[in-house]
Amino acid sequence: MTYDRLDPESAVAEAATSFSNWGRWGADDRLGTLNFLTEAKRLQGAALVRRGVSFSLAQSFDMNGPQRGWRRRTNPVHTMLDTGSDAALGTQGMPHGIGGADDVVAMPLQCSTQWDGLGHIFDHGKAWNGRDAATTVTSDGDLVTGIEHMAAHVAGRGVLLDVGRAISPSGELSDGFAITAEHLDETARAQGVQVERGDIVLVRTGQLARVRRDGWGEYAGGPAPGLSFTTAGWLHASEIAAIATDTWGFEVRPNEFEAAFQPLHQVVIPNMGLLVGEMWDLEALGEDCAEDGVYEFFLAAPPLPITGAVGSPINPLAVK
Amino acid sequence: MTYDRLDPESAVAEAATSFSNWGRWGADDRLGTLNFLTEAKRLQGAALVRRGVSFSLAQSFDMNGPQRGWRRRTNPVHTMLDTGSDAALGTQGMPHGIGGADDVVAMPLQCSTQWDGLGHIFDHGKAWNGRDAATTVTSDGDLVTGIEHMAAHVAGRGVLLDVGRAISPSGELSDGFAITAEHLDETARAQGVQVERGDIVLVRTGQLARVRRDGWGEYAGGPAPGLSFTTAGWLHASEIAAIATDTWGFEVRPNEFEAAFQPLHQVVIPNMGLLVGEMWDLEALGEDCAEDGVYEFFLAAPPLPITGAVGSPINPLAVK
Amino acid sequence: MTYDRLDPESAVAEAATSFSNWGRWGADDRLGTLNFLTEAKRLQGAALVRRGVSFSLAQSFDMNGPQRGWRRRTNPVHTMLDTGSDAALGTQGMPHGIGGADDVVAMPLQCSTQWDGLGHIFDHGKAWNGRDAATTVTSDGDLVTGIEHMAAHVAGRGVLLDVGRAISPSGELSDGFAITAEHLDETARAQGVQVERGDIVLVRTGQLARVRRDGWGEYAGGPAPGLSFTTAGWLHASEIAAIATDTWGFEVRPNEFEAAFQPLHQVVIPNMGLLVGEMWDLEALGEDCAEDGVYEFFLAAPPLPITGAVGSPINPLAVK
Amino acid sequence: MTYDRLDPESAVAEAATSFSNWGRWGADDRLGTLNFLTEAKRLQGAALVRRGVSFSLAQSFDMNGPQRGWRRRTNPVHTMLDTGSDAALGTQGMPHGIGGADDVVAMPLQCSTQWDGLGHIFDHGKAWNGRDAATTVTSDGDLVTGIEHMAAHVAGRGVLLDVGRAISPSGELSDGFAITAEHLDETARAQGVQVERGDIVLVRTGQLARVRRDGWGEYAGGPAPGLSFTTAGWLHASEIAAIATDTWGFEVRPNEFEAAFQPLHQVVIPNMGLLVGEMWDLEALGEDCAEDGVYEFFLAAPPLPITGAVGSPINPLAVK
Repeated sequence: MTYDRLDPESAVAEAATSFSNWGRWGADDRLGTLNFLTEAKRLQGAALVRRGVSFSLAQSFDMNGPQRGWRRRTNPVHTMLDTGSDAALGTQGMPHGIGGADDVVAMPLQCSTQWDGLGHIFDHGKAWNGRDAATTVTSDGDLVTGIEHMAAHVAGRGVLLDVGRAISPSGELSDGFAITAEHLDETARAQGVQVERGDIVLVRTGQLARVRRDGWGEYAGGPAPGLSFTTAGWLHASEIAAIATDTWGFEVRPNEFEAAFQPLHQVVIPNMGLLVGEMWDLEALGEDCAEDGVYEFFLAAPPLPITGAVGSPINPLAVK
Repeated sequence: MTYDRLDPESAVAEAATSFSNWGRWGADDRLGTLNFLTEAKRLQGAALVRRGVSFSLAQSFDMNGPQRGWRRRTNPVHTMLDTGSDAALGTQGMPHGIGGADDVVAMPLQCSTQWDGLGHIFDHGKAWNGRDAATTVTSDGDLVTGIEHMAAHVAGRGVLLDVGRAISPSGELSDGFAITAEHLDETARAQGVQVERGDIVLVRTGQLARVRRDGWGEYAGGPAPGLSFTTAGWLHASEIAAIATDTWGFEVRPNEFEAAFQPLHQVVIPNMGLLVGEMWDLEALGEDCAEDGVYEFFLAAPPLPITGAVGSPINPLAVK
Repeated sequence: MTYDRLDPESAVAEAATSFSNWGRWGADDRLGTLNFLTEAKRLQGAALVRRGVSFSLAQSFDMNGPQRGWRRRTNPVHTMLDTGSDAALGTQGMPHGIGGADDVVAMPLQCSTQWDGLGHIFDHGKAWNGRDAATTVTSDGDLVTGIEHMAAHVAGRGVLLDVGRAISPSGELSDGFAITAEHLDETARAQGVQVERGDIVLVRTGQLARVRRDGWGEYAGGPAPGLSFTTAGWLHASEIAAIATDTWGFEVRPNEFEAAFQPLHQVVIPNMGLLVGEMWDLEALGEDCAEDGVYEFFLAAPPLPITGAVGSPINPLAVK
Repeated sequence: MTYDRLDPESAVAEAATSFSNWGRWGADDRLGTLNFLTEAKRLQGAALVRRGVSFSLAQSFDMNGPQRGWRRRTNPVHTMLDTGSDAALGTQGMPHGIGGADDVVAMPLQCSTQWDGLGHIFDHGKAWNGRDAATTVTSDGDLVTGIEHMAAHVAGRGVLLDVGRAISPSGELSDGFAITAEHLDETARAQGVQVERGDIVLVRTGQLARVRRDGWGEYAGGPAPGLSFTTAGWLHASEIAAIATDTWGFEVRPNEFEAAFQPLHQVVIPNMGLLVGEMWDLEALGEDCAEDGVYEFFLAAPPLPITGAVGSPINPLAVK
């Protein structure tokens, strides 16, 4: 599987054709590969809870985040409608000594730990399942595959592939490192876990550990380790329900073509219907898995059902 | 336990003293009753997954919500940064036929299904654990008990008390109906479930079913069924980790005093440290429990870790 | 000039053809009828300042506004980033006793007193000057006629036509009252003012006075007095630079066709290139003009140059 | 007038005492030095319009602005509720071929060209006119001196002091350059203009020209030319109504004390009641004044009456 570095469009077209799931779950499908996440799978996931310990896989949501304004993406702006300071001053006009604080947030749905909805990426004007992008995702949002349709689904067996730990002595892959199918398989073998149909696969590169130490730099859109374009076949054949990484953009950056922008997204979201997570914090979970050698767990990562959204901020929980 | 309807302040003071948990988990505590939700409890919760079926307990997040502007609370405003319409027109300046859609949201953190953080309510200038409200929750948010501290915790055994179904032939309690400890116990008996220490208890009143049928009306702040002020002792003695209802405000409205505002909140949040959820959608879960007679399940309801937030929008998942 | 009440589309088409200004100021025009507002006109306007008294023609911008959620339009949400309460508590970490307050706003650009930009309304997919609406106003905003292009222009001679006072003994036109060209001319005569090329014409209906007294009701989109569809010719022939009213929607509502939505907008914005203002507060100015009998003044109503905006909140100043 | 560089607090205290206007316009005053801007002054200003040419003194409001997140200040986020792309696709559900675009903005009120409200800065817990900061500016905004009270006032005689052109051969003062009273007087003399009571004085440093050429860098809060702390007396004695600069922070940065933050603000806003404008674009106006030698004009810079706001985005118009 080699591609012409100068011709991303043909590479995308070939992969899109080979790995398309259009029509696989009927013309009305709104779930894509989440269809692989069956009740049996969820049952299997729950059975993996052995200690009852829980890990939040979310980065924080605040102004200290990585966003730098690209595509009008800011960090979350959280402001107060009422505060304890007001309450203590007695200016809230409330009876019997009650006081309250209340707050609002304004944020891009993909500013921090998130799921990409199926309406997030298009291929030549086509959205997931072959739909017309133009009428599927308008200013009113995603009218067909809005993330609210996934609200009840995203809980099941989670598997961590800590590629950073498996491949690199430092535990961190360098920026620009392309993770191949072989790396994924080798990591699974080394860490004693099997990726199965319906799993939610988490890939740790270690980049988040690095930027926490060194500063955000270009975390949001700059060079990063990530999945090689060549993993499209692995992602398709494995029949996983979802995948998430600790990087901004899931796939390796710079992308593996001369002039390209997220070509693997273009294959896996509109064509394969794969649920993709980004900016997950896999540090504490990674350490725990390294310690106890168990790389599978129950994972609940329900998106906020914002009607018509093409992404959702999330706080994924891994329970071991 | 009777209170003077004309003297909410004394009633609150008495209940606050009787049912305080200040200091129970040390001076630095940021979790309140979530401390009851242990790893053993989470293990017990996971073991309740028998069919692998999952229920989203979230209402939708959109402009069709119940908010009417009180306290500057609007419904969520979701807007697009990029759309499929743009992508199809080829105006996005992206290579190889890729197109994208992106979005933002501006919303009060308590506009729809949510957790109240521990910094949401104060009692005479005191926040949870006896802290000074004035310096704990400022314009910079809750500097001590921000909801981000709960990020990893809220997963365990959920118990549904479908009081609507247990008490009322219609399955819906009328507005103003005060649910007492006796109603809670009777419901648990009738539905064959035991409320235990560390549980997350969901109380269905049926009001949401009614407003879905009849229109929002005054759902946000008007008359509603809910917990009686007299349940404070039950909430304390039961040592539950959290409680949530399908109503705007958890406690009965109008409140049970002549001139009062959410007096039970004033007891249970700052004094008891209880995690309170509101505006949950318990309809589908309620039907399922009525069908199979099983009112316990695994519940994952992780708040978004918005730094310093005094509440969080959530999509709670119940897995049976 | 009579129109078939059942056929708004033909009526719009006929008026659009008759009163089009496409090409009048060249293919690159971004200003429409603001081209009539010349430096000479501005000079004439300034000369009208005789007393130095200034009137703000803006309604307030806050949660007590008329918006009810239509088209995701909320009232403005203003929140604080820092407060005096914080400053007084000494929690701001600032030296030498300085303290500060800071704030943010989230608001639709047409939630209160505003200008409609030229990209606000389209006629069969065409924007002002015959441009393709699809590529002119995308998710990135109005790429050609964004309101920023008007930033330096909107100051000149203002003329008040207080139709409410001229036509109705109560000073208020009833909802559904259609103001015709004859009403406009009659009002001008009665109030001793002439409408000239390049003027900014303000039409007071009195509806704002009524809703201030009686409550907003359906001010935002419901029945209202306003300009008749038949005034299109008057608006074109008069060569005014702009027009503004004290109502939500400038033209009479319900509209004068069986099933229609703002047909006069469809003629005057994309076809005529007319600058239209709405929700202006003409009460104090109206009283003053009635008192001194002078209905002309200097008017400065500069839009905020929000790049690509199709409307702008404004605080228009009339100086007499 | 020399100050101890190590003791800003004493310097502020001394200047605050010497240059206080507390009580000058009564205990209920909400306008501060805007009281100097009388109707006579406005009349004088209007008479300065000789050519009818108008200059917008606003920077643009978009994501290409200087904000970098300090104090949760972002650049303005402008998003569309409806677009021409949607309209052209016919997905808006509107009759007779009408289509529409609509938009929203979320922005700090001081993200771009703006006025500081009187509630923006405090001195040891005191707001303008000696009020208690804690109860004057709460989470509900500035309850007393909100910027809406200035809505009708800010139009009058504007005077440009182009200090950059007068002092520096390049026309640009270097970062850290402190403009003294002598510089101001010298500039006025050189440019043939007199500063009078009630004027709105614009001070051009040329920094904006530099950052436009070289990139924003630290424009928002970093080193900049600006008024020396020692100009407090000049600002007081001149009895001007307002002052504005082309820099982020009006006064010189770094500030002229070892460890200080905007000490001149602390004197002039809460103590003197001076209206201060920042981030104005004085480039085109500066060029025009240099050309025709006329440094006075009519200036209208009405704030948006956002209820309780401590600042306002503005588009100031200078008409010559």
